Amino acid sequence: MRYSVSAGGKRLRPILCLASAEAVGGDWRQAMPAACAIEFIHTYSLIHDDLPAMDNDTLRRGQPTLHVIAGEALAILAGDGLLTEAFALMAREPSDSHASLAARKVRVIGIVAAGAGAAGMVGGQAIDLACVTPDDAGAMPPPLDGDALRAMHARKTGALIRASASAGAVMGGGSDAQIDAIDRAAAEFGLAFQIIDDVLDIEGASADLGKTAGKDAAAGKPTYPALYGLEASRRMADECLVRAATALSAVRLADSRLLQIGRWIVERSN
Amino acid sequence: MRYSVSAGGKRLRPILCLASAEAVGGDWRQAMPAACAIEFIHTYSLIHDDLPAMDNDTLRRGQPTLHVIAGEALAILAGDGLLTEAFALMAREPSDSHASLAARKVRVIGIVAAGAGAAGMVGGQAIDLACVTPDDAGAMPPPLDGDALRAMHARKTGALIRASASAGAVMGGGSDAQIDAIDRAAAEFGLAFQIIDDVLDIEGASADLGKTAGKDAAAGKPTYPALYGLEASRRMADECLVRAATALSAVRLADSRLLQIGRWIVERSN
Repeated sequence: MRYSVSAGGKRLRPILCLASAEAVGGDWRQAMPAACAIEFIHTYSLIHDDLPAMDNDTLRRGQPTLHVIAGEALAILAGDGLLTEAFALMAREPSDSHASLAARKVRVIGIVAAGAGAAGMVGGQAIDLACVTPDDAGAMPPPLDGDALRAMHARKTGALIRASASAGAVMGGGSDAQIDAIDRAAAEFGLAFQIIDDVLDIEGASADLGKTAGKDAAAGKPTYPALYGLEASRRMADECLVRAATALSAVRLADSRLLQIGRWIVERSN
Repeated sequence: MRYSVSAGGKRLRPILCLASAEAVGGDWRQAMPAACAIEFIHTYSLIHDDLPAMDNDTLRRGQPTLHVIAGEALAILAGDGLLTEAFALMAREPSDSHASLAARKVRVIGIVAAGAGAAGMVGGQAIDLACVTPDDAGAMPPPLDGDALRAMHARKTGALIRASASAGAVMGGGSDAQIDAIDRAAAEFGLAFQIIDDVLDIEGASADLGKTAGKDAAAGKPTYPALYGLEASRRMADECLVRAATALSAVRLADSRLLQIGRWIVERSN
């Protein structure tokens, strides 16, 4: 568990969680347990995704994947342990007996579980898996079209990114209108993140990415550049930022750090 | 997810959860989400335990295991989805904005996550795994002695059984003394359950058990009958019931259904 959590990574989700708490005028410290919990969940999903039975990846964040180091069985258990510990953390901290805080925590646990579960991330992974799994006769399924690709990513990566931002906004004491606007902006960030991920999978080198470049394309997975080309994909990511800014402006949060995070998502090189 | 949850099973953990809520004078309906959540967690643990990389079992509850039906990748994801959904369920229901209920729910989520996580069930599974994993030189680790076997089972099966009972007692509004006594009784139930499981693994037939009999002994896993013999093992299970009765009597809960459940655990034939 420690090996994978401390392997680095961009920490996008916890940063988004803390920035959302701050954006609504809350204390980011109250969102720290949720922020860490979500990073645990993200890390578990990578461990399980990398397993031989799933993507069978041997390199992640520039280091050997956990099952290479510790074996498949312990990698499965480490993922299970991280997912469980995430909820333990959200239930335990911040240690405050204030009743409204307990209600916030229950709400956040529900948001995070929904984003991470079968209706969110896990369901998206199942769809992604189905795209590269031949049927009993050995025939591959037809490739996803643009709408289906977007719907898959909305669950596989978007749902947990949205949950990160929403959880922060809830812990920070945001109004329902603020939480809703931040959730919508985060949905755009999530889409932009995935588009840029696909772009970097083609443009980038393995050393910069810390994972195997060109892997998705080689596996025949549908990607934005494959459907729309590189230039149009980058333009689509920019359009996500515009829509996020519109959502945040409506509740006067366009000056928060959230849009800076959105710009980083689109301009990053790894 | 549905295939494995609806495959049957004894439903011991949810029954214990509901009975604990009732024992402390609460409404068992308030404990139903936690009871179902814990059964989801138990089910996920069986799915992952049965994987080829873990116990590699093909028969469970009289039916093919999930990875046999759906493949390893979907089985991993189904387990992940059930674990996540368990927390979603505890956060969502019962739908009551009463502040004290939110505090109870946070406490229960913490109890369940602790029982299911690395300090509990997942950690116990890792220890169990280490017992049958040769080192780099191919040598098997020394067999567990009685104390180590007990400690392993306290985590692998005991922790979630304790969490089931404690969660029910908390949702039912039990006093700290009641919750503590129920937790101690459930620890005895958990130990008795494991001892009888080991006994039935030797005595039973696969058809009755709904899983492969003799599997643990064949795998060289340490068991109570292997260490103490069948007769002494059954006597140890009976002693667990006596200690459970003592704990429950101290808070005047010996007449609740909890001891009946304990007796069923020891007297069951599958």
